[in-house]
Amino acid sequence: MTTHTHTRIPVAILGATGMVGQRFIELLQGHPWFEIVALAASEQHGGRPYAEATRWRLPNSDMPAEVASLPVQPCRPEALPEVKIAFSALPGEVAGEVEEQFARAGVAVFSNAKNHRMAADVPLLIPEVNAGHIEAVAYQRKQRGWPGFIITNANCSATPLVMALKPLQEAFGMRKVLLTTLQAISGAGYPGVSSYDILDNIIPYIGGEEEKLEIETRKMLGTWREGEGFVDAPIAVSAHCTRVPTREGHLECASVELEREASPEEIIAVWESYRPLPQELGLPTAPEQALIYRRELDRPQTLRDRDAGKGMSTTLGRLRPCPVLSYRFVALAHNTIRGAAGGSILNAELAYKQGLL
Amino acid sequence: MTTHTHTRIPVAILGATGMVGQRFIELLQGHPWFEIVALAASEQHGGRPYAEATRWRLPNSDMPAEVASLPVQPCRPEALPEVKIAFSALPGEVAGEVEEQFARAGVAVFSNAKNHRMAADVPLLIPEVNAGHIEAVAYQRKQRGWPGFIITNANCSATPLVMALKPLQEAFGMRKVLLTTLQAISGAGYPGVSSYDILDNIIPYIGGEEEKLEIETRKMLGTWREGEGFVDAPIAVSAHCTRVPTREGHLECASVELEREASPEEIIAVWESYRPLPQELGLPTAPEQALIYRRELDRPQTLRDRDAGKGMSTTLGRLRPCPVLSYRFVALAHNTIRGAAGGSILNAELAYKQGLL
Amino acid sequence: MTTHTHTRIPVAILGATGMVGQRFIELLQGHPWFEIVALAASEQHGGRPYAEATRWRLPNSDMPAEVASLPVQPCRPEALPEVKIAFSALPGEVAGEVEEQFARAGVAVFSNAKNHRMAADVPLLIPEVNAGHIEAVAYQRKQRGWPGFIITNANCSATPLVMALKPLQEAFGMRKVLLTTLQAISGAGYPGVSSYDILDNIIPYIGGEEEKLEIETRKMLGTWREGEGFVDAPIAVSAHCTRVPTREGHLECASVELEREASPEEIIAVWESYRPLPQELGLPTAPEQALIYRRELDRPQTLRDRDAGKGMSTTLGRLRPCPVLSYRFVALAHNTIRGAAGGSILNAELAYKQGLL
Amino acid sequence: MTTHTHTRIPVAILGATGMVGQRFIELLQGHPWFEIVALAASEQHGGRPYAEATRWRLPNSDMPAEVASLPVQPCRPEALPEVKIAFSALPGEVAGEVEEQFARAGVAVFSNAKNHRMAADVPLLIPEVNAGHIEAVAYQRKQRGWPGFIITNANCSATPLVMALKPLQEAFGMRKVLLTTLQAISGAGYPGVSSYDILDNIIPYIGGEEEKLEIETRKMLGTWREGEGFVDAPIAVSAHCTRVPTREGHLECASVELEREASPEEIIAVWESYRPLPQELGLPTAPEQALIYRRELDRPQTLRDRDAGKGMSTTLGRLRPCPVLSYRFVALAHNTIRGAAGGSILNAELAYKQGLL
Repeated sequence: MTTHTHTRIPVAILGATGMVGQRFIELLQGHPWFEIVALAASEQHGGRPYAEATRWRLPNSDMPAEVASLPVQPCRPEALPEVKIAFSALPGEVAGEVEEQFARAGVAVFSNAKNHRMAADVPLLIPEVNAGHIEAVAYQRKQRGWPGFIITNANCSATPLVMALKPLQEAFGMRKVLLTTLQAISGAGYPGVSSYDILDNIIPYIGGEEEKLEIETRKMLGTWREGEGFVDAPIAVSAHCTRVPTREGHLECASVELEREASPEEIIAVWESYRPLPQELGLPTAPEQALIYRRELDRPQTLRDRDAGKGMSTTLGRLRPCPVLSYRFVALAHNTIRGAAGGSILNAELAYKQGLL
Repeated sequence: MTTHTHTRIPVAILGATGMVGQRFIELLQGHPWFEIVALAASEQHGGRPYAEATRWRLPNSDMPAEVASLPVQPCRPEALPEVKIAFSALPGEVAGEVEEQFARAGVAVFSNAKNHRMAADVPLLIPEVNAGHIEAVAYQRKQRGWPGFIITNANCSATPLVMALKPLQEAFGMRKVLLTTLQAISGAGYPGVSSYDILDNIIPYIGGEEEKLEIETRKMLGTWREGEGFVDAPIAVSAHCTRVPTREGHLECASVELEREASPEEIIAVWESYRPLPQELGLPTAPEQALIYRRELDRPQTLRDRDAGKGMSTTLGRLRPCPVLSYRFVALAHNTIRGAAGGSILNAELAYKQGLL
Repeated sequence: MTTHTHTRIPVAILGATGMVGQRFIELLQGHPWFEIVALAASEQHGGRPYAEATRWRLPNSDMPAEVASLPVQPCRPEALPEVKIAFSALPGEVAGEVEEQFARAGVAVFSNAKNHRMAADVPLLIPEVNAGHIEAVAYQRKQRGWPGFIITNANCSATPLVMALKPLQEAFGMRKVLLTTLQAISGAGYPGVSSYDILDNIIPYIGGEEEKLEIETRKMLGTWREGEGFVDAPIAVSAHCTRVPTREGHLECASVELEREASPEEIIAVWESYRPLPQELGLPTAPEQALIYRRELDRPQTLRDRDAGKGMSTTLGRLRPCPVLSYRFVALAHNTIRGAAGGSILNAELAYKQGLL
Repeated sequence: MTTHTHTRIPVAILGATGMVGQRFIELLQGHPWFEIVALAASEQHGGRPYAEATRWRLPNSDMPAEVASLPVQPCRPEALPEVKIAFSALPGEVAGEVEEQFARAGVAVFSNAKNHRMAADVPLLIPEVNAGHIEAVAYQRKQRGWPGFIITNANCSATPLVMALKPLQEAFGMRKVLLTTLQAISGAGYPGVSSYDILDNIIPYIGGEEEKLEIETRKMLGTWREGEGFVDAPIAVSAHCTRVPTREGHLECASVELEREASPEEIIAVWESYRPLPQELGLPTAPEQALIYRRELDRPQTLRDRDAGKGMSTTLGRLRPCPVLSYRFVALAHNTIRGAAGGSILNAELAYKQGLL
């Protein structure tokens, strides 16, 4: 780590060697506000240069030259004194404790791990959906006596769903959601899913995923109120999660029960006119359109729509009446960009814009 | 076509060159009751031997020697005078008229085509589900003045669903079903889905499929009563149909609302103890177990379970409470065997056993 | 077609509805020298707007707005009077005659079709390899009395091979090449390969491909001399062509027999220092590096390297001695960009720079 | 392990939990001569029942009931006193030492591991190819003073090649072989290849595979002579090995240089008339035809031909002259059956028939 003065905010990637860690590195190249100054992962790497410690797994880029020679440090705040922001791509087994250490040491932690998502004082944040939840940070700091803080982003399968539901909830109210996800292999990290398990196969089970999707959705669609804390949205959510042989992009077939009558045209209009805060603020990683509605009969498709908005847009389609609930539709988002590293960076951009950094 | 006396019933395959036609041929090899004596397809083949007129597409077998030299005849009953049973794998554009001609000429037609499925006097038959509907044949013959008749089998995506639902309906009553299908490419026939459309992709749309699944399910779970005709089951059915990159096997994630309370154990017991008519009668193509419930967390899987019962069993798994309806589960069946050719052959076996041939 | 004065050269795409036609459209967006003013395809489209006549098949882009409303014209020069350049993505059945009509009408035709590739007065051109062959155009025009001309680009499987071989031939001489290709499904166009044929499968045969690869390689590595014509390089070429389940990118495992001794380091140096004409001239579509040599043990890989140089670079790797010939290595190029539309555009850029337009 | 008297020879599977171990179990079900009485793997399993210690990975079968309750023993001969034959599917890191311990303890070891393949007194055996090499066993026992012995089978990529070459070598002599392999993911075991590495990708590198293929081929096509030992065949072998997204079946594109002239018809006749020892002896696992030559233009194909002869036949096709060597052709065999477990069982059957057990 160099010691010169940074004009951009110095950030570290925790869990830098895994797939989401690599996405953080890729997406932060050329970032106007944040500069990677440190990479950290398990102690076993012992300070070796990143290029020696790991192989680059992302198919559409090479390891950026500027990180190749950075040493892979241990995930301890005292080893990374210069760092103001830590993006955490740590596995659940260690993320809980490590992230707390960083927050306690004054670092702003933006985490992709599941550990603190459901904590009563930690925002589970999608800036397009529940930007107001960021107010919990002040409470969290006070409560825990931390100079830093933790903000989490949602499970990759919850993201497209919540992006689609939020405008509907606001406009029409919502009581029930029932969905099936068709999730890409990259959602399991690297090496993740064995090719022998998934080639010419569907696995209709992802451990813990359905529960996460259900509880996180209710938290994100719920409210944060000073003195009251987080209150879940009173929405019944039922998820079937499946793993399918696609590389990137989680596609979801959802049915919803709305509280008020709405025509298909009204619903599409609500989606298409949706202009949430990140787009208002012009956050660097925010896509031009948070939601894209495709009118073709057979869209969104995983391959064709996952990269919309550089992987940060959520693409919707096939809105039609549902014989059991009110309406059904299809939603899609890129799971390792929007649903992971990109979402976390957007959270940091919102925090920065709102003076938390 | 030879003219010697057959000890087995002489059958023809209509639409013999396509993928389902080839499945009929494959599955009828060594059949104890039925013998292929004629192959028919579009006129363009002009009587050429089957081996010249078409290429064998099924991956796990070669073209059986006994059909290789059979001439590919036109689909006209007068060209196939010896035939008592016609298995129809014809495309929807021609199936309607051709099948009627055969029935009018005295042939028992077992059709995989959609055209007559919803007719008021045509059974849409799955012997394990609605064997009683076969009684509509007498009415059909009388009504239409046909010496032959038409019996249809269901859309390949309706089959696993209805197999799973029937025992639940009988035991507990049922009001609503909401499901997402993950359907194999072979469901689109040959050449069917372009590899460029489906490799690393999900297409969340199959033209006409959702409608077929919904109306066929209600007909099959409904009743046939003399003088009253078919009465649909009063069940709301909502389907999301998707095409996924698997070769064979339609996997379905379903949620159901039951009329009466039931524990998971009771539901599994109802499935596991299900002994419908084909198994009672020992029909040659009936699998030992119509329904197989897998207790592993991650089953059924498309690749691992599609061939259960030689492709004729329906495999179930993952029964668990549904936060929106009563229960959710996964069902799987082989789409070109159970959901197409094999289902049609089983229908013919039931008809034979019940004296209709 | 508009009639205003173009500041860029007005071009047409022949065969604009197919996969390579769409690649031409995609790659010509924002081109500094060429402007698409007309789209042409088979007469059946009858002048309907492009957006109605076809569906966009390329997964990473949408149909550009500027072509959506262009009428799909017939492939006749009199219907496209304004056009100076025609990029031909026509199928072999019609390309031969149509391309000649355009050349006869004064249009510069850059063709991806096989028909004229081996003609005695038609350059089979890869600007990095045999830029000098473009001199045959003067002879062609004189010989045929055409105001326009035809320049062809090579078969998509010949391109990476010839790119790799040219510097070796120049530096060390070459006698024999033996290779196996692993070709992506997009090489067969759209709908092309049925998914039922290729999912979980390898097809070790592509009709006519091995012959094309063998003869085209010898022509491109041969010479053009005024008065003498094309003289094939005296190199024995043997190709095994296979179709594999990848979307884009032809990977080739090649062994070569060189005339002179060379160390691995010398060979790699020759590749890495290769600076052919397009890069010298700074042609807009020329990649920065024509050849990229990857030193990792397991590169190039289809997925990871096909997009190198925006799909215009050829990536090499795994150079090692061959126990049967001299050396063996792996080569890879993007088949529908470098090996088809992109290659043709580069040919037009060279022709433009050399004053032929 | 039970202690009753076995009417069949009691065998153990070493490395029983891996993919090849599971294939051994699957293929030995109902074997007329051999009976699985013990399963062994790494110590970590501590005697737990097989059904608890591992998950069944093979897609087309369930774990056989008869092995589900067998304890997973450590790989030590004293723990498996009853065993007469050990089939080894051990990983290379431990196979060397463990297999020697078993042979020293009097067990006949049939190994799929690489460790002893190239030893000067260990047969590298394919009964259809070099049955005579089994005579090295007597020398091995004497040399090493072992009551048991070790016989190995070849690398899965060497098997189809050598099966194809042996009859050519006998009939016409052979000097050179150059081939590219397209190898299925199952060749890497389980979990083996990450799906993220191979979906929509080709990896043109498999560590150590090319070397193994080259040296094993020369040993197997060479001779064993009393007092002289193994003498390699004087054949230059050059291999390019690639990993492709298929589940099972290694397809190989080969070119050979023969010593004597031969017409294509003569070569095909030599293949088709090949009747080696296992077929002569009627060994239980020997397929009816060791070699199958397909005359279709596009065969063998991985998916369609890998299961020929229950996965024990080698399928050939596309014989045609080679512009560089004499002839080229395509060969295919099932890598985890013929190229692994099935090959080893056939070796044991030969040894049994020849009185070595």
